[in-house]
Amino acid sequence: MSVQKEFSVSRVEAFSDGVLAIIITLLVLEMRPPELHAPESVSDTLVALAAMKAKFASFFLSFFFIAVFWVNHHRFFVHIRDVNGGLLWLNNLLLLMLSFIPFPTAFIGDHPRNTVALALFALVLMLAGIVFNSMWRFARARRLAHDSIPESIIASAARKGLFGPLAYGIAAMAAPFSCTIPWAIFFIVPAVYALPSDLMFKRRK
Amino acid sequence: MSVQKEFSVSRVEAFSDGVLAIIITLLVLEMRPPELHAPESVSDTLVALAAMKAKFASFFLSFFFIAVFWVNHHRFFVHIRDVNGGLLWLNNLLLLMLSFIPFPTAFIGDHPRNTVALALFALVLMLAGIVFNSMWRFARARRLAHDSIPESIIASAARKGLFGPLAYGIAAMAAPFSCTIPWAIFFIVPAVYALPSDLMFKRRK
Amino acid sequence: MSVQKEFSVSRVEAFSDGVLAIIITLLVLEMRPPELHAPESVSDTLVALAAMKAKFASFFLSFFFIAVFWVNHHRFFVHIRDVNGGLLWLNNLLLLMLSFIPFPTAFIGDHPRNTVALALFALVLMLAGIVFNSMWRFARARRLAHDSIPESIIASAARKGLFGPLAYGIAAMAAPFSCTIPWAIFFIVPAVYALPSDLMFKRRK
Amino acid sequence: MSVQKEFSVSRVEAFSDGVLAIIITLLVLEMRPPELHAPESVSDTLVALAAMKAKFASFFLSFFFIAVFWVNHHRFFVHIRDVNGGLLWLNNLLLLMLSFIPFPTAFIGDHPRNTVALALFALVLMLAGIVFNSMWRFARARRLAHDSIPESIIASAARKGLFGPLAYGIAAMAAPFSCTIPWAIFFIVPAVYALPSDLMFKRRK
Repeated sequence: MSVQKEFSVSRVEAFSDGVLAIIITLLVLEMRPPELHAPESVSDTLVALAAMKAKFASFFLSFFFIAVFWVNHHRFFVHIRDVNGGLLWLNNLLLLMLSFIPFPTAFIGDHPRNTVALALFALVLMLAGIVFNSMWRFARARRLAHDSIPESIIASAARKGLFGPLAYGIAAMAAPFSCTIPWAIFFIVPAVYALPSDLMFKRRK
Repeated sequence: MSVQKEFSVSRVEAFSDGVLAIIITLLVLEMRPPELHAPESVSDTLVALAAMKAKFASFFLSFFFIAVFWVNHHRFFVHIRDVNGGLLWLNNLLLLMLSFIPFPTAFIGDHPRNTVALALFALVLMLAGIVFNSMWRFARARRLAHDSIPESIIASAARKGLFGPLAYGIAAMAAPFSCTIPWAIFFIVPAVYALPSDLMFKRRK
Repeated sequence: MSVQKEFSVSRVEAFSDGVLAIIITLLVLEMRPPELHAPESVSDTLVALAAMKAKFASFFLSFFFIAVFWVNHHRFFVHIRDVNGGLLWLNNLLLLMLSFIPFPTAFIGDHPRNTVALALFALVLMLAGIVFNSMWRFARARRLAHDSIPESIIASAARKGLFGPLAYGIAAMAAPFSCTIPWAIFFIVPAVYALPSDLMFKRRK
Repeated sequence: MSVQKEFSVSRVEAFSDGVLAIIITLLVLEMRPPELHAPESVSDTLVALAAMKAKFASFFLSFFFIAVFWVNHHRFFVHIRDVNGGLLWLNNLLLLMLSFIPFPTAFIGDHPRNTVALALFALVLMLAGIVFNSMWRFARARRLAHDSIPESIIASAARKGLFGPLAYGIAAMAAPFSCTIPWAIFFIVPAVYALPSDLMFKRRK
């Protein structure tokens, strides 16, 4: 019995979905209720919450990023016929990257203007994108995908797979000079991916 | 291959169920054993537990709220035939709202008489209800539901979908004037939804 | 479409399984590495770990208890044909009890000789047993089970369902007088349930 | 109805997968953003992150270990036809070992040169391997596996099942004399298991 046959696509998907669902839900644990002194006036409480704005923003960003990844991860496996050992471990490597995300999320939430924190967040997202991209390439090279996938889907996925890592690479490089550029990129990239891919990446006529 | 075909209803449901199961279970992490000084007398321990009563209440409320949402979320997807990109992202927006719930839960648990905390809790639940309601409307407008759903089901769901957000809106507006009204509404709304919908929302003869 | 038809047995089981898997895994978060001063000698470290023995014991007990519940919960749903609104909410009530377990687990782990902590742990487990027992009775009364279940299975389940709550009730009542009795009962009850039920509860010839 | 029939292989697998997905994802909670003083210079931040290197390493190791276990756990259940009470409880015992892993992971992350921490981590991994090995032996002895499994698969699994516990036993014994040997073993063992088993354990010609 070969490795290929032992791993059903559905099982790898189910495990990945479980991990993604847990990551997306653990993010909320980073946000703790503010410490307040009696009497807890409305204005004091609002000031305390406003001081947490980077926490809320990083929660939202990572949630959005992982939701986008879930959508694209699913789209990928729709096209896959067989999972061999190589693809399995590329997927595990992807899950490692994604499972790590709560750490840089908390880091930029606590230190929203810290160069290293911003660069680390960008690098982790960039690496996740690169690993995911390599899964597409690997699956294509090893003929693990269904034969019926139109070439346009693969070309579109390849373009999508370049945009994210490139943008996050720019965010990482911009971090020493500006906080605004990385934060803006963190918001823009998942938004671009959430839009219908027909609109963003597919049209070529 | 269109977006509609790529996302099976069962997969979106399974991911949503996973997220809901995790949220509902993470709530317990907010309750920490009380600090006690030796000798740990029964009366001191009971006093320490009594001081945590808002923690216990908010745990119960959020558990109950999410259990109700799970039930209604499932009822919704029973009627859905196709998931397109729009419905997928409305569902992800709903999961974002629900995933955020542990934060306001902890907030009202720590600060049960804080106007901002009570209003925030109410607003998050209100927004979750509005997003869920818009999923019903979207599915209906885009003909994503099974053709065989009787109109009475949709009308009942529409009435149910208005009640919650309306009640939570009142809770948010009442928060600056009273703690009792929001807390009472937080207890009443899930109880109303937990009752058979035939009894509460469907009968119209 | 009636409530009965909307809720498939498999879906309620899957959601319950998810919640149980999360509870059982969250328990480990209660155990934190000990604080140690340099040089970290072997004997100092062992003393620090020995001081955590109630933490380890309560982790093990709750893990074991929930594993037993998972096994019996599954055995229950094997016999169930339909899930109506009543059974659904009894199951949600059971999940509420079980989701709460990490709190008394942490409580007895921190305060292993505290009467209130021991009684609370016992009461939560007792209530979980009572709710589960009432699920059996409800399913039988409303004819939600498969017709082919032999009466002996139901009678055995009824006996099993009494033993746990009874034992935990004794543990709760013994807590003010002894720490040993509750702890002993906490270890014995899941062990009894883990043994083959043929051996423990079924034989009556 | 016998115990064997009540527990489907797929259900035990799904529950185990859920627990493994949660463990692997909870590991990230051990890494907290460093405390930094303003102005947060790049060099200070990098120093603070470098001081956490054992945390990152232990996260990676435990992630890798559990990913390997997931792969092998799945390979095991592919061959299993029936789950009886004995195999069910061996599997629960395995899940107990694996669920405990975040504790020694945090322990070696906080105290990377502590003999007891290193030995405990090694012992937990060794015990998990031994329990898993005994699942293979039990399944074979009780004829729970499919008849069609070639003897070479079982022999290969038996060799694999010895290597891990043996290596971790050596790590535990080496801990009082060296920190390097246990850490090296922790990195090497999952890597060996991640390689194709044809390469590592199967060839015998």
